Amino acid sequence: MSHIDVDAIADIARGAAILGAGGGGDPYLGSLLAERVIEQTGPVELVRLGDLPDDAVLLPVAIMGAPTVIVEKPPAGGEFAAAVAAVAASYGATVTHIACLEAGGLNSMMPLLCAAETGLPLVDGDGMGRAFPELQMVLATLDGISTTPMAMVDDKGNTVVLNTVDNAWAERLARSATVDMGCGACIALYPMTGREAKTALVPGTVSLARRLGQVVTTARQDHRDPAGAIVSEMDGRMLFRGKVTDVERRTQDGFARGEAQLAGINEDSGHTMTLCFQNEHLVATRDGDVVASVPDLICVLDSDTGEPVTTESLRYGFRVTVAGLPCHPRWRSAEGLELVGPAYFGYDHDYVPVEDLAGKGMSHV
Amino acid sequence: MSHIDVDAIADIARGAAILGAGGGGDPYLGSLLAERVIEQTGPVELVRLGDLPDDAVLLPVAIMGAPTVIVEKPPAGGEFAAAVAAVAASYGATVTHIACLEAGGLNSMMPLLCAAETGLPLVDGDGMGRAFPELQMVLATLDGISTTPMAMVDDKGNTVVLNTVDNAWAERLARSATVDMGCGACIALYPMTGREAKTALVPGTVSLARRLGQVVTTARQDHRDPAGAIVSEMDGRMLFRGKVTDVERRTQDGFARGEAQLAGINEDSGHTMTLCFQNEHLVATRDGDVVASVPDLICVLDSDTGEPVTTESLRYGFRVTVAGLPCHPRWRSAEGLELVGPAYFGYDHDYVPVEDLAGKGMSHV
Repeated sequence: MSHIDVDAIADIARGAAILGAGGGGDPYLGSLLAERVIEQTGPVELVRLGDLPDDAVLLPVAIMGAPTVIVEKPPAGGEFAAAVAAVAASYGATVTHIACLEAGGLNSMMPLLCAAETGLPLVDGDGMGRAFPELQMVLATLDGISTTPMAMVDDKGNTVVLNTVDNAWAERLARSATVDMGCGACIALYPMTGREAKTALVPGTVSLARRLGQVVTTARQDHRDPAGAIVSEMDGRMLFRGKVTDVERRTQDGFARGEAQLAGINEDSGHTMTLCFQNEHLVATRDGDVVASVPDLICVLDSDTGEPVTTESLRYGFRVTVAGLPCHPRWRSAEGLELVGPAYFGYDHDYVPVEDLAGKGMSHV
Repeated sequence: MSHIDVDAIADIARGAAILGAGGGGDPYLGSLLAERVIEQTGPVELVRLGDLPDDAVLLPVAIMGAPTVIVEKPPAGGEFAAAVAAVAASYGATVTHIACLEAGGLNSMMPLLCAAETGLPLVDGDGMGRAFPELQMVLATLDGISTTPMAMVDDKGNTVVLNTVDNAWAERLARSATVDMGCGACIALYPMTGREAKTALVPGTVSLARRLGQVVTTARQDHRDPAGAIVSEMDGRMLFRGKVTDVERRTQDGFARGEAQLAGINEDSGHTMTLCFQNEHLVATRDGDVVASVPDLICVLDSDTGEPVTTESLRYGFRVTVAGLPCHPRWRSAEGLELVGPAYFGYDHDYVPVEDLAGKGMSHV
C-alpha cells in the first residue's frame, strides 16, 4: 500500500499517456484536474491488485468520448461520485475501490480524481494495459464479466444507467448517449469483486505509468533520448523518426478518427509512415508495410522532450518518434485478437507481434 | 371502478387509434397483443382518475419508436414489467397504478398489457389526450413533472434508465437509445402521485376510446357514415374526402416522417389535400391552405369502414375521410402551444383552432 500525492501526478499522467497509445486523453489537462482535487483532499491511497480482498467491490471509471472534444469540455465536478453511486445502487453493493478502466493521460487521472472525491482507495491496475476506443475492449470481457450495470453522467447532470445483455450492446447504447452528451461523459462500469479483478485487470499500471514518466524526466535531464529510454524500459521497438506532414481528422460516431502522415528524418530520411487512429493509434505503416498494429501499442513521442503526443494533439510540423510496445499477453490469444485485433477494426492484415515485425533490421535503439 | 375484459379490447383499440391522430401504433396489432395476455390473466381493473388516492404512485407506459418498425417488431413479453420495476427502483416507491402515456392503437393496449402482466389497475386517462411524437409533449411537462426516472427495455433484454435535468434531455437521450434498440422500445416514465395525475393526465381517455370505437361499429351497422358520426361525437370538423395518390415516407432520427397527397372525391372533387406527419399527422392543407394543425387532432379514417388509418399504413389508392378534432384545452394555451404548436415542428403558420379554420364553409357533416 502506498499513496499518490500531488508530486506524483505529472509523472503518472505522462507515463499513462505513453501507455495510452495516442488515446486516453491529454495528460496535461488530466494532471491539472487531478492536482486541483488532491490539493484539497490530500493523497489517495494506492492498493496493489494482489492485496485486494476477494470480496472487495471494485469499480473502474473513465471519461468516454472523443478526445478532441473532451480537451475543450472537462468534467464540471461531482460526475464521478454520481456515477459510482448509480452503479452501486444497480449492482446492489457498496463500492470499496476505484480502478482505472484504461491507461491514458486523462483516464489515469479521472480514477484518481474519483477516488479523491469519494474517499475510496485506488487500485494499482487497469482494464486493458493501454487505451482502446471501445468499452468491451477489456480483459474483463474475456473473463465474461459484464460491462453493466454501467452509469454515465454528463457535465449538465444527466445520468444514464445501462444494463445490457452483452458488452457489445453496452458499447452501442453508451456510444449514442455519449454523442448526445456532447461527445464526453464520465462513466463507471464493470463492477467486479476483488477476486475477479485479479485476472480481469492488468496489475501495476499506475506504478508503471509513474516509472515511465520518471524515465522520460531522467532521460531528459541526462540529455539522453527519452523515446529510446522508453523503448528499452518496455522491451519495445523503435519504429520511426519523422516530421508530421499531414493530419486528417474527423469526429465521427463519437470517436476522433483520422490518419497522420509522417516524413522520415535522420536514419528514416526518404521513408514515410502513416498512422491510422480511432481515438488510439491502430496501425502504423512504413512505406506501405505494416510495422505495428493493434493490439500492440503504437506510441508517438515528441522527439525533443519525450512527451507523449495524443492523437488529438498531433499536428503539422511536429517532430516525433514512433515506438511500438508489446501489449498484454492475453490480447495476443485467439480470443483477445477477436476482440481487439486488426480484423475487428476493419483491417485485413494478420496480427504479428511488434517484436517480430519491427524487430529485425528496424531497431534504431 | 370497472373492468376491461377481452370483449372491450377491439373497440378501445379502434377508438384510441382515432384519438392517436395517425400515430400511437396499429390498433389491430395492439388488440391482438392485449387479447392474448388478458385471456390468460383475466380482466384488468380500470380506475377513474378522480378515484385515485392522492398518494397513489402512477406510472405511464408506452412503446416508443417508429410505428413503421414497431408493426414488424412487437414486444417479446416481459419488457413492461421490467421497465416498471426499474423506474420504481430509481423513483424509490412502489408503483400502484399503470396509465397510458398517449392515446393510440398500440399505445392504449400496451398499458393494458402492462397492467395485466403486473397485476396493477389501469387509470382511465392519458398524458396528452391524443398521440404526439416526442416524450416531453405531455401535460405533465406543463405541470413541471419530470419525465425521469424513465426506463427503456428492448426485446433482447437491454435496459436503460435515465435521470435527466429536463424533459427535452430525456427525449434526446431516449430517442438515440430507441434508434439503437431497433426503433422500438418499451418505456415507463413520468412517475407521479395520484394528486399530480389529477391535473397532469387527461381524464377518461380509455372510456372515450371505447365509446368512439362503439360509435364506429354502430354507424357501420346502421349504414351511416362512421366518420361523420365520430365528428359529431367529438364536436370536430370534416376536412376532406379523397383518395390517396402518393405517400412519401422515411424512417429518420427514429421517427416515421413523410407526406401524403390526397385527391378529392365527391364534394371535394377537384381539390387536393396534403398531410404532413412525424409518427402523427401534424398539418393538413387543402389546396395549399392550412385547414388543421397540431395540436388539434388530424384523423384519417377509411371512408367505407370508419377504421382509423395510421400514418404507417396509409398507402396509394386508399379512400379516406379526414377529420379534425379539437385538442385538450391546455394545449391551446401559450405554454401548450410553445411545447406542441406548429412552430415547434418547424412550421411558420400561426395556430388557429380547427373549429375556426374549417368551421365555416367546410363542414360536410
